[in-house]
Amino acid sequence: MKQRLYKLVVILAIFSIFNLGAVRAENGYNLWLRYLPIENVQLRQAYQRQLSSIAIYKHSPTIDAALKELINGINQMIGKVPNISSIPGGAAINFKTNRLVLAKLDQPAIAAQFSTVERRQIGQEGYLIKTIRQNRVQQILIAANTDIGLLYGSFHLLKLMQTHQSLQALNIQQWPRLKLRILDHWDNLNGTVERGYAGYSLWNWQTLPGIIQKRYIDYARANASIGINGAVLNNVNASVKSLTREYLIKTAALAKAFKPYGIKVYLTAKFSAPKELGHLKTADPLDPAVIKWWQDKVKEIYHYIPNFGGFLVKASSEGQPGPGDYGRTHADGANMMAAALKPYGGIVMWRTFVYENKKGADRAKQGYEEFKPLDGKFADNVLLQAKYGPIDFQPREAFNPLFGAMPHTHMMMEFQITQEYFGFATHLVYLGSLFQEYLRKDTYQKGPGTTIAKVLEERVNPETADSNRLTGIAGVANIGTDVNWCGHPFGQANWYAFGRFAWNPMSSADSIAEDWLKMTFTNDPGFVNPIKKLMLGSREVAVNYMTPLGLSHIMNFATHYGPGPWSKFPGWDARDYHHADSVGIGLDRTATGSDAVSQYAPALAAKYSNLKTTPLNLILWFHHIGWDQKIATGETMWNSLVHYYYKGVKQVAAMQQIWQSMKGKIDEDRFNYVTQLLKQQHLEAKWWRNGCVLYFQQYSKRPLPKDCKEPGKAYWNYPTFKPDLPFPYHLDDQ
Amino acid sequence: MKQRLYKLVVILAIFSIFNLGAVRAENGYNLWLRYLPIENVQLRQAYQRQLSSIAIYKHSPTIDAALKELINGINQMIGKVPNISSIPGGAAINFKTNRLVLAKLDQPAIAAQFSTVERRQIGQEGYLIKTIRQNRVQQILIAANTDIGLLYGSFHLLKLMQTHQSLQALNIQQWPRLKLRILDHWDNLNGTVERGYAGYSLWNWQTLPGIIQKRYIDYARANASIGINGAVLNNVNASVKSLTREYLIKTAALAKAFKPYGIKVYLTAKFSAPKELGHLKTADPLDPAVIKWWQDKVKEIYHYIPNFGGFLVKASSEGQPGPGDYGRTHADGANMMAAALKPYGGIVMWRTFVYENKKGADRAKQGYEEFKPLDGKFADNVLLQAKYGPIDFQPREAFNPLFGAMPHTHMMMEFQITQEYFGFATHLVYLGSLFQEYLRKDTYQKGPGTTIAKVLEERVNPETADSNRLTGIAGVANIGTDVNWCGHPFGQANWYAFGRFAWNPMSSADSIAEDWLKMTFTNDPGFVNPIKKLMLGSREVAVNYMTPLGLSHIMNFATHYGPGPWSKFPGWDARDYHHADSVGIGLDRTATGSDAVSQYAPALAAKYSNLKTTPLNLILWFHHIGWDQKIATGETMWNSLVHYYYKGVKQVAAMQQIWQSMKGKIDEDRFNYVTQLLKQQHLEAKWWRNGCVLYFQQYSKRPLPKDCKEPGKAYWNYPTFKPDLPFPYHLDDQ
Repeated sequence: MKQRLYKLVVILAIFSIFNLGAVRAENGYNLWLRYLPIENVQLRQAYQRQLSSIAIYKHSPTIDAALKELINGINQMIGKVPNISSIPGGAAINFKTNRLVLAKLDQPAIAAQFSTVERRQIGQEGYLIKTIRQNRVQQILIAANTDIGLLYGSFHLLKLMQTHQSLQALNIQQWPRLKLRILDHWDNLNGTVERGYAGYSLWNWQTLPGIIQKRYIDYARANASIGINGAVLNNVNASVKSLTREYLIKTAALAKAFKPYGIKVYLTAKFSAPKELGHLKTADPLDPAVIKWWQDKVKEIYHYIPNFGGFLVKASSEGQPGPGDYGRTHADGANMMAAALKPYGGIVMWRTFVYENKKGADRAKQGYEEFKPLDGKFADNVLLQAKYGPIDFQPREAFNPLFGAMPHTHMMMEFQITQEYFGFATHLVYLGSLFQEYLRKDTYQKGPGTTIAKVLEERVNPETADSNRLTGIAGVANIGTDVNWCGHPFGQANWYAFGRFAWNPMSSADSIAEDWLKMTFTNDPGFVNPIKKLMLGSREVAVNYMTPLGLSHIMNFATHYGPGPWSKFPGWDARDYHHADSVGIGLDRTATGSDAVSQYAPALAAKYSNLKTTPLNLILWFHHIGWDQKIATGETMWNSLVHYYYKGVKQVAAMQQIWQSMKGKIDEDRFNYVTQLLKQQHLEAKWWRNGCVLYFQQYSKRPLPKDCKEPGKAYWNYPTFKPDLPFPYHLDDQ
Repeated sequence: MKQRLYKLVVILAIFSIFNLGAVRAENGYNLWLRYLPIENVQLRQAYQRQLSSIAIYKHSPTIDAALKELINGINQMIGKVPNISSIPGGAAINFKTNRLVLAKLDQPAIAAQFSTVERRQIGQEGYLIKTIRQNRVQQILIAANTDIGLLYGSFHLLKLMQTHQSLQALNIQQWPRLKLRILDHWDNLNGTVERGYAGYSLWNWQTLPGIIQKRYIDYARANASIGINGAVLNNVNASVKSLTREYLIKTAALAKAFKPYGIKVYLTAKFSAPKELGHLKTADPLDPAVIKWWQDKVKEIYHYIPNFGGFLVKASSEGQPGPGDYGRTHADGANMMAAALKPYGGIVMWRTFVYENKKGADRAKQGYEEFKPLDGKFADNVLLQAKYGPIDFQPREAFNPLFGAMPHTHMMMEFQITQEYFGFATHLVYLGSLFQEYLRKDTYQKGPGTTIAKVLEERVNPETADSNRLTGIAGVANIGTDVNWCGHPFGQANWYAFGRFAWNPMSSADSIAEDWLKMTFTNDPGFVNPIKKLMLGSREVAVNYMTPLGLSHIMNFATHYGPGPWSKFPGWDARDYHHADSVGIGLDRTATGSDAVSQYAPALAAKYSNLKTTPLNLILWFHHIGWDQKIATGETMWNSLVHYYYKGVKQVAAMQQIWQSMKGKIDEDRFNYVTQLLKQQHLEAKWWRNGCVLYFQQYSKRPLPKDCKEPGKAYWNYPTFKPDLPFPYHLDDQ
């Protein structure tokens, strides 16, 4: 009997391992477009009634894409294929048969349902969704001024269904607050991806232009579903090969495939291309032969790619060629290219990341110093693309002082979706919180309330408001050939969140996470609520175990993975970033130090100059603080620092616990995968904690607070802290 | 009215594009393990009765893997989860409740159902499947001597269901004819794959050992389903890094994950490792320090990987270090490593591909010349791994004369599953036909009937037969990170076919193709029959448009892609391989030429020495033939050659037509993908045809036969024929 009982237990255990039938298998390929069957009968029946048919006026590739998405999504969610019908141009809607109508506002019958303000407000990419009624017959309208607006609106409707919302009384007005919403792919032509941790480049240059993989289309669908409307296909550290005829023909095939989804293709342009490809003696932007070369090249590009978007340029930075090589300014370089693109409607995105690695100089000041004097000198089809912080995509930096400081220049934001400094695709870090933090930062440049969001939207000087103003945002993509696109299952949330913030910089990280979780995993609040909380806290957790209190750039320099406050390379020294010494730690960026504070609006400069008014999470960014000095935590600097590191590790352990309690609520594959990843993240959090605490202790010469257990060995005795080991190949439970 | 009709047509057209619901979407990730629902009600009900429960005696990781596969497969195919129960050790089967029983033959109740011969014959990896009856109650037994036999048997049962076979009266005895059935992954540690065309390496060395991706398990499942029991993880052009402790720990994690699926892990060993890693002054295989170094390294390997398989070695070939560097023989090198592995049961696979690129020498003779004299000199845990032909995986070569010529040496076959010379992952080429052709080749070494299959199985001298004899076969994998694993949807068939031929070298390419099509696409004979025919002809089609009549190695030398009979590189000249001149074309390998024929058994040497008795498909391999000479086709050499090229192109067009007629029979995604690929293959077949015909015409100086339309331009005027262009970036319809 006992034996039988044992066997039953074994068998039950196996069953729970198999998790049969309960939740369907999911490898993550479908992202947030899973369209899971609606199991609530009432809701399903309501949707079945409301979406039994779809009517359109006219076909177009974009409208067909919308129809296809709607038919597929509706069928999967409610198990019924809607009837499709056409309404003759100019005719009224048939309330008897047309349940969902997808129509442009140039149809009088449609326009009549909306106000003039509504119709104008949504512009060229927005949409309106409205439930209307006639004789008790209900109907849903998706209306827009353009085809792409209809596609975006269709994805919105599908999202409402995926998140189990009622369609009874819809009245939605949506339009993007930024014009360019772009993914930057740092993809090399050989298929590798700089700072890519989710496989390799999506673009198969060998089989292009002949083969259009389904994956390209699914990429475009996913982007369109969140309103992304541009993709820079290749690395900012550019190869001129991408501008050759051969590659333009390949790129043209991708551009054509993306077009129905409203996505324009952009390329990075290496500044020295006229020399490398054109065999000119110079790439001087003021040289007539160079100007001519770019004009001809642009003409050729538009011959192959009529809807080409323009160039992204990294110039005179990190060894890249640029106008500086010829004594010219960034404006000279950007404007020359912009002039070539102008006749075709193309634009230039010129990066302000101009890292030169000057010894002794405060790197945080360099972008502002080079670009601020050029305000107003850039052509009107140039945008300056600035990272959120003045250094380089750190877990936390002060915001980039260029925002708000160049009122006569189009400024766009550069976020990094790929987790270069956030544990690659191994750590769960929801970047929605980061995007929100920076977009809502107040620059004070036009008084309080001059948020970066407003600066990006060019709403700072409302008198110059113009619906055609050139605004934008870019995110360095975290997408690769991994089956689930992003490596970490939660990496998808960062792609998704970027798109949502690009659409509206004042979005909420909270509600975006909620939508994403519901669409990607389940609507079960028993999963959504705790995991949303986990996501929303996750970025701060990573800051705690990596770079608390305003530390930055103390990672392993060779890989940007794992701790490295001791990293030292020719021309680069982590100590320039943390300034730990026998006295204290942190960079003095006040007037007594590098005076980087002076690059901010006076109100902010004053705030940052005073340790007491400096936000706690940036104190080491702006101040050198004595080890024994009491800070706002109520503890000494040293004890606070150590406590943050220990707290980060504990928080990851808590994340693991929460995740474990989700077992059975979602599919087994992703549950197990995230379980492994969190375990690894926990090991690596300890790696960061021990490495940093033990390293800084050499300077502080103070014991750890009593509640912090001493790591077992000195940091340099851990094999994984050796600088020549790129990856934590084997982290013991340190 | 007319307008309405038009609209209806448009709408219907859209519907057929969407192909709604008819066939479920499929991205190819599930390979041949799709377990599609059985739609035939009678069959489904029969399966439901026959498989309502599964009983086992004991759990083990391998048996749990089998159970999991059965439960999942059965549930997906018939919509019912079988009950699982345990039978106490020693107890009889319960005919009332146990429908399917999975049990080892050490259970007396199981053993009693089979003959002694059956039980012995299946050895350590085989299995028996039998339908038995008691009092009209039917039961299915899967029995084996080992757990892995039970897993293999479970996959066999699932295959029967996937191909809609009756389970009424099963009586199956299956066992592998070769002991080592291995995939060679030419994967570099940086993630690239040499000769890989389906993405990048599956092994994510960054996240190993912590993260075991689901993909690793699915890889193991797929391999186990076809009996593959070994994987060489890294490139034959090896990096010593794979032998470092860090990488051994990572490899150990993979080995552990693969173990339940019967897959052993092997590594390539760079011969110079004692110098590079051990900092010795030499890698001389007879040097005591070198011997010690390998002994220590092997000990370390087995510490981390207790079930490690052994080494694959490419030495003294194409610039790789080897025993030749120290005046030692291949046997000296292989035996030294073998001695280190011997105590742990490890083996050495030593490649006979020893290309040295000597000007003037007939490359086809080199392997035989180096290895034949060493017959009998290799340790008993060494296998020589020889490619099917003496040159290098060409579309067609004469078979490698080493097979059958080294009776006192373990010989294993090396096939190439990845299509290095077969149009990468762009051309549809079913290699089952090629595997079958070579495995059935008669070497005549022990009289007629000494097939390569027999040589590999060591059945040539039956008196030495021994169930422990070391036999094997290897295939260079075509697997990468592409969602569908193999790039071309039909590339999966080559992985599948390799496994099936490895299990039994006398398998039939025809029935393997049929099984694969049914499991991968559909059981619909309207699809299976024509597409099987298309597959079976496809390799010959590629030979026709690439290298007909025994031509070889005339591809673009830089990429091995596209035509290049004009290719010339330092130390390599395509003309050495085709010998086209004003007189004729082809290599004289008879006694008047290189005398390579003398490396074959006398009967074959005589046959190949005479043009009249040389198989038509090898005449240019063995003979230099005058342009105007009549050959077995009934036409002149020149006209025959041209006609083959034109025929190849026409055949691809016919393949396209057949494929088009399959529309609607399978899922839209793969249908469209193959449609694009065949279109590209057709363009590239013309590229080959035009390039080769126009190039050889410079020598023949004869017009094309009248029924062959002259290509538009001379070959060198096609941009795609320029040697510096690696890929056919834009093939016009030439």
